[in-house]
Amino acid sequence: MSGEDAPAQQQNAVDQKQETKPAEEPKAEPPKTESAEAAATPAATTEKAPEEETFTYRALVLTGFGGYDKVKLQVKKGKPALKAGEVLVRVKVCGLNFADLMARQGLYDRLPSPPVTPGMECSGVVEAVGEEVTDRKVGDKVMVLNRFGLWQEVAVVPASHTFLIPDGMSFEEAAALPVNYITAYLMLFDFGNLRPNQSVLVHAAAGGVGIAATQLCKTVKDVTVFGTASASKHEAISQGGVTHAIDYRTKDYVEEVRKISPKGLDIILDPLGGSDTHKAYNLLKPMGKLITYGAANMLAGQRKNLIAVAKNWYHQFSIHTLSLIQGNKSVCGFHLGYLDGEMELITQAMNTILDLYKQGKVKPRIDSTWHLEQVGDAMRKMQERNNIGKVILTTEPMPEEEKKEEAKKEDKKEDKKKEDKKKDDKKKDDGKKEEKKDDKKKEEPKKEEKKEEPKKEEEKNDEAKKEEK
Amino acid sequence: MSGEDAPAQQQNAVDQKQETKPAEEPKAEPPKTESAEAAATPAATTEKAPEEETFTYRALVLTGFGGYDKVKLQVKKGKPALKAGEVLVRVKVCGLNFADLMARQGLYDRLPSPPVTPGMECSGVVEAVGEEVTDRKVGDKVMVLNRFGLWQEVAVVPASHTFLIPDGMSFEEAAALPVNYITAYLMLFDFGNLRPNQSVLVHAAAGGVGIAATQLCKTVKDVTVFGTASASKHEAISQGGVTHAIDYRTKDYVEEVRKISPKGLDIILDPLGGSDTHKAYNLLKPMGKLITYGAANMLAGQRKNLIAVAKNWYHQFSIHTLSLIQGNKSVCGFHLGYLDGEMELITQAMNTILDLYKQGKVKPRIDSTWHLEQVGDAMRKMQERNNIGKVILTTEPMPEEEKKEEAKKEDKKEDKKKEDKKKDDKKKDDGKKEEKKDDKKKEEPKKEEKKEEPKKEEEKNDEAKKEEK
Repeated sequence: MSGEDAPAQQQNAVDQKQETKPAEEPKAEPPKTESAEAAATPAATTEKAPEEETFTYRALVLTGFGGYDKVKLQVKKGKPALKAGEVLVRVKVCGLNFADLMARQGLYDRLPSPPVTPGMECSGVVEAVGEEVTDRKVGDKVMVLNRFGLWQEVAVVPASHTFLIPDGMSFEEAAALPVNYITAYLMLFDFGNLRPNQSVLVHAAAGGVGIAATQLCKTVKDVTVFGTASASKHEAISQGGVTHAIDYRTKDYVEEVRKISPKGLDIILDPLGGSDTHKAYNLLKPMGKLITYGAANMLAGQRKNLIAVAKNWYHQFSIHTLSLIQGNKSVCGFHLGYLDGEMELITQAMNTILDLYKQGKVKPRIDSTWHLEQVGDAMRKMQERNNIGKVILTTEPMPEEEKKEEAKKEDKKEDKKKEDKKKDDKKKDDGKKEEKKDDKKKEEPKKEEKKEEPKKEEEKNDEAKKEEK
Repeated sequence: MSGEDAPAQQQNAVDQKQETKPAEEPKAEPPKTESAEAAATPAATTEKAPEEETFTYRALVLTGFGGYDKVKLQVKKGKPALKAGEVLVRVKVCGLNFADLMARQGLYDRLPSPPVTPGMECSGVVEAVGEEVTDRKVGDKVMVLNRFGLWQEVAVVPASHTFLIPDGMSFEEAAALPVNYITAYLMLFDFGNLRPNQSVLVHAAAGGVGIAATQLCKTVKDVTVFGTASASKHEAISQGGVTHAIDYRTKDYVEEVRKISPKGLDIILDPLGGSDTHKAYNLLKPMGKLITYGAANMLAGQRKNLIAVAKNWYHQFSIHTLSLIQGNKSVCGFHLGYLDGEMELITQAMNTILDLYKQGKVKPRIDSTWHLEQVGDAMRKMQERNNIGKVILTTEPMPEEEKKEEAKKEDKKEDKKKEDKKKDDKKKDDGKKEEKKDDKKKEEPKKEEKKEEPKKEEEKNDEAKKEEK
């Protein structure tokens, strides 16, 4: 997932202010020269100047760090050049991840400085292959994993960052799978070394990684899954395999776990960071593994909240080896975004996950599908934790009527929303100064109550959506 | 391994200043009452008062924290009482561990205050069983794992802390196996999650844990083992399975590893602590696991070396979770002595190890066998790292002639040795003040050179020894 070339792609493209329809399916594939000339000509399509100029595509671009409105839909011009080993993918669906939210706030150092196209995963169809690519061909349905640059209609990525979509898997599922399932898989089965009869705590069990982790836990005999989520999501996560659902907003999850498992837990997946990591550490059994993979506690409000960041930093867990020795404990850190160059490891994990998918043992759950124009709302839904499952974006063009309605809604709402949000953030910040810790529990119900009305009917899956139109 | 009852056993016994021969094999086993009276009578042998009084056995006792001479051979009187669930073991052979050396210096908090009998492992024969013991019987050959209290001729332990010795395994091997192999096993296969094609760094590869770890690594396909040891031990560790032997006294092991494995290592077992833990962390691959299981760097000289302890503490590795996340790394701490009450886990590990033993895949290597009277020399050999494999003690009485010779040698040598040692320690302390770090490499060859002549011919195994007599 080096993704180093995505910025180059963007430099090739010329921003246009007006939106245009995405290009039709390409009439002809670019000439595919074989290995002989491979080293000499990095771009395989240099001959086709006319098409290069008329080629346009829509791309989401992070224009600066800040709120949801910092991600803008732009139209790029010029067909991106392909280097050896790369493929050009016509993107169908993009996945949203917490790292994208962090990145927007300037809290994720794996994203180059704006302007830049975010997006770590997508699904689509191979539209052109560069030289030296032997295992992908035009027309292949693929899912893609990259450090960034996938929230656009056309993406150029190393072929090694693509995985063939198995029969029966939709583009929606394919876009929802890579980051969450590889993350959950490597945490549970590499660091966690999950075995039968063990117990696992999954925070945010209704989130993308949470659902993936729960499903993967259930592939091992007699694993007990403790899952935290707000009460409204308990039915869903219990159906998904969580053994004990805990409402972290009204209860102390540590106490709840201890009631059922007094000795503590074998594995704890910690996406929260800060003081929750301390709690997790203390909740481990001997030989237990704490795997921390995020700092969601840093995200308070849509813009960088310096107090939340500072608090998270201040409460950041730090451990001495002598304590680890005396406790017989393991502390691991995981982030797929930092696993650059470990494509062999990732491919192994992906192959196992796809086998499990084919066996019907894992299946991504889609919370909602949004148009590129709605990326702000999509991000908000995820950040405010109103999702059950994966939030995804479709590159399918928004019908004109919907677009007009959306624009009207936006005009009216945006100003108000911004004002509200500013006040809201300020309130939270002030409030935080008074609270020492564990404020999350108290704050989040507030957020839940003042949740804005859904922007549009949630489209549970693509099929349903298509029928509506 | 609660071992809580060993002190009680010692209180029952009366110290005697003169040494006596150990009691003969018991004429009759104590009455074995079945479960009915179990709760009421904790001690099954209360009727046999006369035997209780004449029963004597030799025990090593740590009389205070300090040098090798703080462990004294004493004679205890009175047969220890058995509680429900316990067995009385006639000890044949005892294993020495680094924790015993730490304990003698007052650096190991799992040993009660002196006077106390050290010893975490031994082999022997069950001589009596308490009530409620169903899976052990008189005459069973067992190996024992306990928090302490096993360096004596007779030990009372929970039956659950004993493991049947498989056919073909000698008492020497049985005493050498539990601590080293369970430690290596849980580190490599629980925390480490060792898999084919991975790479492992084993420090002190000629030590007990080092040899066990190397053998266990070789049970997994295509594992590369980097092993550190002084050059004189390279042949032995290479024969034992180490792929790349590194002389840490003359070379920088980090550089040596990088030459062969530029990306770093999958698993590092770190018994050293201090600055070596930092090196290990930096030497990990993404998804790599550092398992620290000791602080051997603290041991400098035979008495507690406050500077070494302070330095180890000062250089103690401490890690923030954000670093772990960005590195995709795992840091684990392990110490069998703190795994109280995890007998199920330990028994599972032991069963797997015994299976591997039966398959001929693992086999403890004995460095040398010493009489109880020679425990000081045995400890010295281990602490000065002159051993290849396990240092063990036999409870077999020392022949009278040998004893006299030993006494003469001791008289002459002890005073000199103490003086030398004091000077030596002082020199080291002074030296240390000037050296900033990595002094180990420079000091240890010195120690090696001025190594005293062996106290007695090393007895490579029990059979050989018996023939000599």
